[in-house]
Amino acid sequence: MRVGLLTGGGDVPGLNAAIRAVVKRGEGEHGHSIIGFRNGWKGVVDGDVMPLTRRDIRNVLPTGGTLLGTARYHPHASDGGLDAALATLEAERIEALICIGGDGTLNAASKVAAAGVKVVGIPKTIDNDVWGTDASIGFDTAVSIATEAIDRIHTTAESHNRVMIVEVMGRHAGWIAVTSGIAGGAELVLAPEEPFDIGRIERFLKHRHRAHASFSIVVVAEGAVPAEGTPMHYETQVGKFGEIVAGAIGERLKVEIEQRTGFDTRVTVLGHTQRGGIPTAADRILASRFGVAAIDAVTAGTSNVMTAIQGEQVVLLPLDEVAGKVKFVPQDLLTVARALA
Amino acid sequence: MRVGLLTGGGDVPGLNAAIRAVVKRGEGEHGHSIIGFRNGWKGVVDGDVMPLTRRDIRNVLPTGGTLLGTARYHPHASDGGLDAALATLEAERIEALICIGGDGTLNAASKVAAAGVKVVGIPKTIDNDVWGTDASIGFDTAVSIATEAIDRIHTTAESHNRVMIVEVMGRHAGWIAVTSGIAGGAELVLAPEEPFDIGRIERFLKHRHRAHASFSIVVVAEGAVPAEGTPMHYETQVGKFGEIVAGAIGERLKVEIEQRTGFDTRVTVLGHTQRGGIPTAADRILASRFGVAAIDAVTAGTSNVMTAIQGEQVVLLPLDEVAGKVKFVPQDLLTVARALA
Amino acid sequence: MRVGLLTGGGDVPGLNAAIRAVVKRGEGEHGHSIIGFRNGWKGVVDGDVMPLTRRDIRNVLPTGGTLLGTARYHPHASDGGLDAALATLEAERIEALICIGGDGTLNAASKVAAAGVKVVGIPKTIDNDVWGTDASIGFDTAVSIATEAIDRIHTTAESHNRVMIVEVMGRHAGWIAVTSGIAGGAELVLAPEEPFDIGRIERFLKHRHRAHASFSIVVVAEGAVPAEGTPMHYETQVGKFGEIVAGAIGERLKVEIEQRTGFDTRVTVLGHTQRGGIPTAADRILASRFGVAAIDAVTAGTSNVMTAIQGEQVVLLPLDEVAGKVKFVPQDLLTVARALA
Amino acid sequence: MRVGLLTGGGDVPGLNAAIRAVVKRGEGEHGHSIIGFRNGWKGVVDGDVMPLTRRDIRNVLPTGGTLLGTARYHPHASDGGLDAALATLEAERIEALICIGGDGTLNAASKVAAAGVKVVGIPKTIDNDVWGTDASIGFDTAVSIATEAIDRIHTTAESHNRVMIVEVMGRHAGWIAVTSGIAGGAELVLAPEEPFDIGRIERFLKHRHRAHASFSIVVVAEGAVPAEGTPMHYETQVGKFGEIVAGAIGERLKVEIEQRTGFDTRVTVLGHTQRGGIPTAADRILASRFGVAAIDAVTAGTSNVMTAIQGEQVVLLPLDEVAGKVKFVPQDLLTVARALA
Repeated sequence: MRVGLLTGGGDVPGLNAAIRAVVKRGEGEHGHSIIGFRNGWKGVVDGDVMPLTRRDIRNVLPTGGTLLGTARYHPHASDGGLDAALATLEAERIEALICIGGDGTLNAASKVAAAGVKVVGIPKTIDNDVWGTDASIGFDTAVSIATEAIDRIHTTAESHNRVMIVEVMGRHAGWIAVTSGIAGGAELVLAPEEPFDIGRIERFLKHRHRAHASFSIVVVAEGAVPAEGTPMHYETQVGKFGEIVAGAIGERLKVEIEQRTGFDTRVTVLGHTQRGGIPTAADRILASRFGVAAIDAVTAGTSNVMTAIQGEQVVLLPLDEVAGKVKFVPQDLLTVARALA
Repeated sequence: MRVGLLTGGGDVPGLNAAIRAVVKRGEGEHGHSIIGFRNGWKGVVDGDVMPLTRRDIRNVLPTGGTLLGTARYHPHASDGGLDAALATLEAERIEALICIGGDGTLNAASKVAAAGVKVVGIPKTIDNDVWGTDASIGFDTAVSIATEAIDRIHTTAESHNRVMIVEVMGRHAGWIAVTSGIAGGAELVLAPEEPFDIGRIERFLKHRHRAHASFSIVVVAEGAVPAEGTPMHYETQVGKFGEIVAGAIGERLKVEIEQRTGFDTRVTVLGHTQRGGIPTAADRILASRFGVAAIDAVTAGTSNVMTAIQGEQVVLLPLDEVAGKVKFVPQDLLTVARALA
Repeated sequence: MRVGLLTGGGDVPGLNAAIRAVVKRGEGEHGHSIIGFRNGWKGVVDGDVMPLTRRDIRNVLPTGGTLLGTARYHPHASDGGLDAALATLEAERIEALICIGGDGTLNAASKVAAAGVKVVGIPKTIDNDVWGTDASIGFDTAVSIATEAIDRIHTTAESHNRVMIVEVMGRHAGWIAVTSGIAGGAELVLAPEEPFDIGRIERFLKHRHRAHASFSIVVVAEGAVPAEGTPMHYETQVGKFGEIVAGAIGERLKVEIEQRTGFDTRVTVLGHTQRGGIPTAADRILASRFGVAAIDAVTAGTSNVMTAIQGEQVVLLPLDEVAGKVKFVPQDLLTVARALA
Repeated sequence: MRVGLLTGGGDVPGLNAAIRAVVKRGEGEHGHSIIGFRNGWKGVVDGDVMPLTRRDIRNVLPTGGTLLGTARYHPHASDGGLDAALATLEAERIEALICIGGDGTLNAASKVAAAGVKVVGIPKTIDNDVWGTDASIGFDTAVSIATEAIDRIHTTAESHNRVMIVEVMGRHAGWIAVTSGIAGGAELVLAPEEPFDIGRIERFLKHRHRAHASFSIVVVAEGAVPAEGTPMHYETQVGKFGEIVAGAIGERLKVEIEQRTGFDTRVTVLGHTQRGGIPTAADRILASRFGVAAIDAVTAGTSNVMTAIQGEQVVLLPLDEVAGKVKFVPQDLLTVARALA
C-alpha cells in the first residue's frame, strides 16, 4: 500500500517522532511504502515527494522541527490548488494520506477527503486548541519551555519592585498562558478566553505591591484582548508599532502598566523558542502513539478521521466533527489559575 | 475548619506544588487552618505537627522533595499505631485529613476513614500504578529524567558495538520503562507485565548486531523478572550480590548478556535521580489541580475519596475502589513500544 | 572576626553559592561571624543587617537570585551615603567587608576601602565585562540560556524563509551575544564592540537567502549600535517606542530588516530569563572558589582586592586596577564568531 | 591543501562542534579539502575515508557523539599498524592531519608526527586530565550532567536517613567527582588523587548522622581506591562481582558503608550518560575555538602541536610536552571541596 505523509502549519516539537512512528510501523509491520510530501500541502500541489524508509528516520526521535519541512499553505485556498493536489495523489498512486497538522491542515484534509481520498489526520499545535483531543503534539513542550522561563524570572524578580511580563503563544485559546501560569506560579494570567480589564489589573498590582509583594509576574497570551469599554489609554503611544511587531500585546501592556502604576516593568517575548528544541518525553510518546494509530487506521481502511487522546486511550474521531472547532480552556482550569495566583 | 495534611511514602517531584495548592486555596478562599504533619503517618502517630501558612509555601512550587518530610510508615501496620493516629487527630481537633501518597499511604487513609475520620487522598507515585487515575504526581518527571538518560546514551552508544542497559524504577508495573523506552527509542523494554525470556533476548541481540546495528539499548524496570522455565544461567555468579544491591536486575542482565553474546555491555542505574529534582510543568499542574480539588472536596464535606485525573477532568473516586489495586501498562502501549523498537 | 557580606547590582545565578561558601568557610574553618547586609549597599547605609549561620544557607547552592537581596544603589552617589555606610560598619563592628557585585558595586567597594575599611570584592555579572578575570559569576549560566534559545529557534527556523532575531543582554560588551552566537551557530552576531552597518546586513541576508539558505539567525546584544553614517531609515517608525521599551534594538532591527529585505522577521527578547534560574555547575564552582578565596583573604588581613579567575588559578587583584575598566570581547573570539557563521 | 581529520577514543559531547569548525574554517576561509577518517585511527589504517563538505556539518553543532565515528585503537599498538596508517596518508595525499582525542589518540599523533607527518592535536576527554590545557572538550558537559544528578538526589535524600552514593567517571584523575561534588554540595568526594580511609569515612558518616544530618551524599570517581592498609573488610562479599561490573567501586562502597554504619545506602551509576547528550555552550565554544585554531595552525605549516586553552587564550603546545602526562586535580580545588562539604 502506498501511503502519503505530510506535516503542515507551524513547526512543533514531536513531528519527527510521529513521522518515525508512521514509517517504522507502516514499513515494518504492514509492509507499506511511505511517500512523504515536502512542505505540507504545498508539496502535494507541486508533486514534491520524498519517499521515506527506516534509514531516513534514524535518530530523529528527539529532534525538533520536521524532516519533511512544512508550510502554511492550504490547497483549497488557492485557485486550482485542490485539483493539483488530487492530481499529484493520483499520479503518485497514493492510496491513503496521513496529514499531521493543526486546524488549517486538518481542514484541508477533510476537503481532500470529501473529494474521495482516504485521509487520516494527526493533531499538532502548541496552542492545544484542536477540538476533541486532550492534547495535541507540541503543547507539552511549549508549556515546559514557558514554565522554565517563568521559573527563571521568578528568581530575578524577587529582589526588585517590579512587574515582569511574559508573552506566550496562543492566538485563540490561552492554554499555554494558563497552564504555564499555574506551573510557574504567575500572579496574573491573561488569556483570550477572558478579555481583561486594564483598570482592574492596575488596581490589583497597586494593591499587591502596597500590601507586601516586591514583584508580580504577568503571563499574557498573544491573543489576549482588553474587554469592551476598558480602553488602554496609552496604547496610542505605540499605535503604529502595534501593527508591526509580533510582541505587540506584551509591549502594549508594559507601557500601559508603567504609565498607570509607575512600577518598573520588563517584557520577555518567548516567540519561536516555544516551537522549537527537543520534544518532551510526553510529546514524543503522544506523537508515537498517534503515528501508530494513524497508520493502523489507514491499514484498516478507515478514512476521514483524526487520532485523538482521551484519557489513556487513543481514539479516532470523524474529521468533520473536529474541523473548524476551537477547544477553549475550561472554567475549572481558569479557576485553578486564579486560586493559586 | 482545621484540615490536616501529610505526604507519605517515597519522595516524588510535585509534592510541594500540591501542598502549596492546598494551603493557598484552603487558607485564601475557604479560610481554613492547614495543619501539616511531619514525615507522613509517623507525624500523625507522634503528634508532630507543623501549621502551614502562605509564608511557608513561598517559592516551593518548582522544588522537589516535600517540605513536610515523608516516611514509609503505616499506622495500621504497628501495634496501637492506628489508635495513636486517631488520638492525635482528635487532640489537634482535625476535622478532615488530606493524604498525599501512593498505594500504602492511601490504604492507611481508607483505614483511618473507616474509623470515622474525614479523609481525602491525592495519588502520587513515579510508578504511575495507582488505579483509577490517568496519572499520579511524579510520574511525568520520572519519565522525562529516564528519557533524557536514554537520549544521552544513544549518542555514545552509536559509535561502538555495545549493549547499554538502563535500569529504571517500577516494582509492580513498568510505566517508566515502557514510556521512556518509547520516548527514547529503546530497542528492548523489559517490564514486570511481561516476564522476559532471556534466550529470546540473546537471539534478538545477536541477530540485530549481526544484521547491521552497532548497538542496542535495553530499558529494564527494577521489577522485571524472567519467565518461568527460562533460567538465567549466570546469575549464580552474582547470587549473593543479588540480595545486597538495589541495581540487581540491571547487573544480572549485564552478566547474562555478556556471557551469552560476548557483546560489551554497560549498565546505568538511575536510582533516586528519578525521584528528585525540579518537577515538570505537567506534574506541577497536576499537583496544583489535585490540591485544589482535595481542599474543595474537604470543604464540601466529601470524604473517603481520592482525586484522580481522567482525560481533562479532575474527578473524585471512592478510596475503597482504588486502594489495593494496581494499574498495569495496557496492551496498546506495550504494542507501541514493541512496534517502534 | 566580624565579616560583613553584601550582594549588589542586578541578580545573577550563583550569588547564593558564593554566599554559602563565605559562610561555610568563614564560620566553619575560621570561626568568624558573618553579618549579611540586605539589598546591597542600601542595607549598609540603612543598617539593615541579617546575621548568617550555616542554617541560613541550607539548600541554597542550586538556587538563583540572592538570599540577601540586592539593589542598584551606590553610597557615594547619594549625599551622606558613604558616611552613613561607614557609620553602620562601625556600629556593627565590621572588621572586613566582602562585596559581591559588578562594576558599580566594586567601584563603591574601592571608595569604602579608600575610607579605611578592609574590603574584598567578588566579581559577578552576566555581561562578563569585569576587567582582570576570565569569568564573572553568572556569565556561564546566561550564555547557556541564550544558547538553548538559539538551539530552539534553529529547529523552527529551518522550515521557513525567515530572519530570526534573538536579543540578548550586554550593554557595553557583547560577551553573551558572541559566545552564544558561536555556541548556537548564529549567522550574524551584533556586539557593541563592532558598530554594525545596516546596509551590509541587508546585503548579507539578501545574498544568503538568494543563494540557498531558508533562514538566518541574528543575535544582537542590547548595547549594539549602528556605525556612524549608516542610518537606520525606518527607526523613526518606532521612534518614541525606541525610548520606552527594553527590547528596543531587537524591534528596531526587525523593522529595518523587514522593510529592506521583505523577509518575515521575528524577534525573541530573552530579557530577565538570562539572569535567573538554576546556576550552571561552572557558575557554582566559580562562585564557591571565589567565596572561599575571599574569606581566606579577609582572614589573612588582605584588603582592597578582588578575587579573579585566571586560567585554573584564583588570584587576588588590586581593586583600583580593576574598577572602572571594561573587558571587551577580544578579536580572536570575534573572528571565530565570523568564521563559523 | 588536503587535510585529514579524525576523532579517537571515547565519545564526548562537542566533537561535532570541533569537526564543524575545522570544515567551515578550512573550506570556507582557506579553501582546503577536509578528508575525514572513520572510527579514529582505525579508519586511517584501513583507508576508510569520508570527505567532508559544509553540507555534512549542517545542524551538527548541538549534537552529541561524532559524525566520523570513533574507536579505541592505536596504530602503534598493533603490528604494522603505523606503516599502514602512513601508507593511507600518502595514498590519500594528506598534507596534514588533525587528531581530536584524549591521551591515547594524542600519543599516537606524536608517533605519527615523528614519522614525518604534519599533525595537530585537539584535546578531548570528560576526565579533563590532558596536561597543559585548562579544559578539554567534553568535560564541562560531563560535570553539568553529574551535578544535575546530585541536585536531584539532594531533594530525595533530605527526607530520609540515608547515604546516597553517586559514581562518576574519572579513572586516573578525579576532576568530575571534585567539581560536581563542589557544584552539587556533596558531603564527601572520593578521588584517585587521595586514596580514602574507609574507617574515617565510617566515623565521618556516623558522627554526621548522630549530630544532625538526615542524609549524606558521597560522590566517588570510578578510579578512587582505598589507601594502603585500610582494608575494606566486606568487599570479599562482592569479590567476584568486583571483576565483572563497571560500577564496582560504587557497589563496593555501598556494601562496606551499610555493613559498618547500618545506614540504608543507595547507589546511582551515571555511566555513559556522562558521555552523551547535548554539549553545553561552554563545550561548543571550546570545541569551535580549538577547531579554528587547529586548521589555522595547519595552514600556517605548524606541526606536532596540540591546541590548548589557557585562561582566555587558545595556545599551541608541543605534543611531546603533553603526551603521556596526566593533569591531576590541584590541591586548592580539593581544599574547596573539603571546605564546603
